Amino acid sequence: MSRLFMFEKPLGMRDTLPELYEKKHRVRTLMEEAIKQWGYQFIDTPTLEYYETVGTASAILDAELFKLLDKDGHTLVLRPDMTAPIARVAASRLLENDLPLRLAYSGNVYRAQQREGGRPAEFEQIGVEYINDDTVSSDGEVIALLASSLKQAGLSQFQVSVGHIGFAQELFMQILGTNGRATALRRFLYEKNYVGYREQVNSYSLSSIDKQRLLQLLELRGGEEIIGKALDIIENGYGKESLIQLKELWEVITDYGLKDYVKFDFTIMSHMSYYSGILFEAYAGNVGFPIGNGGRYGLIEKFGKNASATGFAVRLDRLLEAMGTQEVTTPVECIFFSQERRKEAFQLAETMKAEGKKIVLQDINGVKNLDAFTKKFANTTFLIGGA
Amino acid sequence: MSRLFMFEKPLGMRDTLPELYEKKHRVRTLMEEAIKQWGYQFIDTPTLEYYETVGTASAILDAELFKLLDKDGHTLVLRPDMTAPIARVAASRLLENDLPLRLAYSGNVYRAQQREGGRPAEFEQIGVEYINDDTVSSDGEVIALLASSLKQAGLSQFQVSVGHIGFAQELFMQILGTNGRATALRRFLYEKNYVGYREQVNSYSLSSIDKQRLLQLLELRGGEEIIGKALDIIENGYGKESLIQLKELWEVITDYGLKDYVKFDFTIMSHMSYYSGILFEAYAGNVGFPIGNGGRYGLIEKFGKNASATGFAVRLDRLLEAMGTQEVTTPVECIFFSQERRKEAFQLAETMKAEGKKIVLQDINGVKNLDAFTKKFANTTFLIGGA
Repeated sequence: MSRLFMFEKPLGMRDTLPELYEKKHRVRTLMEEAIKQWGYQFIDTPTLEYYETVGTASAILDAELFKLLDKDGHTLVLRPDMTAPIARVAASRLLENDLPLRLAYSGNVYRAQQREGGRPAEFEQIGVEYINDDTVSSDGEVIALLASSLKQAGLSQFQVSVGHIGFAQELFMQILGTNGRATALRRFLYEKNYVGYREQVNSYSLSSIDKQRLLQLLELRGGEEIIGKALDIIENGYGKESLIQLKELWEVITDYGLKDYVKFDFTIMSHMSYYSGILFEAYAGNVGFPIGNGGRYGLIEKFGKNASATGFAVRLDRLLEAMGTQEVTTPVECIFFSQERRKEAFQLAETMKAEGKKIVLQDINGVKNLDAFTKKFANTTFLIGGA
Repeated sequence: MSRLFMFEKPLGMRDTLPELYEKKHRVRTLMEEAIKQWGYQFIDTPTLEYYETVGTASAILDAELFKLLDKDGHTLVLRPDMTAPIARVAASRLLENDLPLRLAYSGNVYRAQQREGGRPAEFEQIGVEYINDDTVSSDGEVIALLASSLKQAGLSQFQVSVGHIGFAQELFMQILGTNGRATALRRFLYEKNYVGYREQVNSYSLSSIDKQRLLQLLELRGGEEIIGKALDIIENGYGKESLIQLKELWEVITDYGLKDYVKFDFTIMSHMSYYSGILFEAYAGNVGFPIGNGGRYGLIEKFGKNASATGFAVRLDRLLEAMGTQEVTTPVECIFFSQERRKEAFQLAETMKAEGKKIVLQDINGVKNLDAFTKKFANTTFLIGGA
């Protein structure tokens, strides 16, 4: 291979070096422990799935899928999310007797990048899927678990913004009448392009009252009081039902003692086609994207089972970015030995490891640059030559 | 999608359900802790690599590679092993000042299957690479760490068989003269087809003494005494050098107090083209394949750095198979609540979780089949209706 090329990695692919690895490992472990304490069971699914099943169910843009062909000519994809594979497993093997099912995962997902823009093509998600329970309590549980697990991971400052896919949808249909015009507005909301949203609203031929209602949607962000303001701009039907759900959700979150971490935001919109109810996003620090998100979805139906579900996914890379730098590694000590005192060195290392220390055992003949090597350790011991 | 097809997974791909997930997680964590205590640093590398770099360096058969094209027409592979990617990272970013480098990994690797034969196309390896130290002490360290981490993971009965790629190679060249004839014999050894090996030896036109020497190779399995027997069938040169290394290795292993776990086996052969010295394989229970293997290799050179290395990889699926069934999950308790006593339920759950318990909080309205659901828990509490 050519020298210039030999160290290259595919677009968006990254190595994780020791310091970052330890941080990731620590945060992942803390989140997993929190999730297990809430009675969720972890499962894992394959990296590769059939395009026709999980690939299409995942609702990730086709251009973002890594595709390959198997020996029989079927198209495979590197899983672009974990929700669709877990829906497959739940529908085929775990849903039974119409019971609620609490599953969790921690795994890498894959999104092909079209150009070098700093976005990872492979990243790790930790999340839960709470399947076959359509109470608002279950929406409240996954939001509370999201907040609780982020706190347990060591993140102290964050905000969960909660909305409902039904409210904006109903408002758009009441005022705009057609799904095409609603889609344009939804897209601006999903992109968080509020300037574009305003321009689009103003370009429509509508009464000034209706334009005002559409623009007021952008102001629906805040605490419990937002429910009342939302009621003022909606007329009836499903939009009102979504507000009843959000009011109950607020009470659930309050009972969890977590309302300081939660606010309403009625502009939240997902590009995922399968969301069907309450939606949420978590933000922290100066990270420009959500560190986590989730909501209620009807994806299980695509796998032949009539079961509603709700869940969240946290992006570990963004969570670590929000947490900033923290020193987590235990210092390592080194025992240098020569053949004469090898056995003594091995026994000393055993004793020190039993005390919980990290010990490198180094044959002195294996080190060409001793000065540089000793600098790597918090402490060094030399057991060299005749005792 | 069609109902029949929707639950299918690609050939060799598997789901990991909760019970197996917990077992894997526990064994992986114990091995990782052992490896860290020996001062090894964990790193991670991407799932996808360029075929031209890591793909060709990996020495896995081309037919076993999962390949895909990126948008620029470059061939990518799902990493078939971890040693080649770690060689890339070490050579490009971590090797400095000619110092020894101890790295570790825990990750999935991918091998395409040509037919349904029960072999996984994706499996997890945990391993170490000890780079840039060519002492026999470093070979001894990775064998000792393999044994030590298997013990820490809870495996009590296992055997590490140790050989040397140089011994058989030198014997073959002394007797057969050509690399082609040596390759045929190496292949029988790699496949552990000793009947085929004997037939092949007998088919060659050789003196009966030389045939006997080739057949005696198959008997070179056992403890320290095997070194002397091996000396009897080799003439000089590199083959003898390999025996000197193995003798020193035996002393190192003895000083680690691990000689009961180790024996010599001069028939060990790898299909990996990059191995260059001491080789070993670990066996346990009734598992028909090695649960782990490793040895000294020259792969780093393919990435432009002159550094010898040694390492091992353990296959987590085979290790779990060797360990058999063990119950590891903590029992989960369930608190059922209705709206009136929701807050009380949440507070009780907090208290119980603080005691280390796993608690499911279940809105009673979310359960359609209460009898079946309560059976899933070790204990249930009902906080329902007026207090």
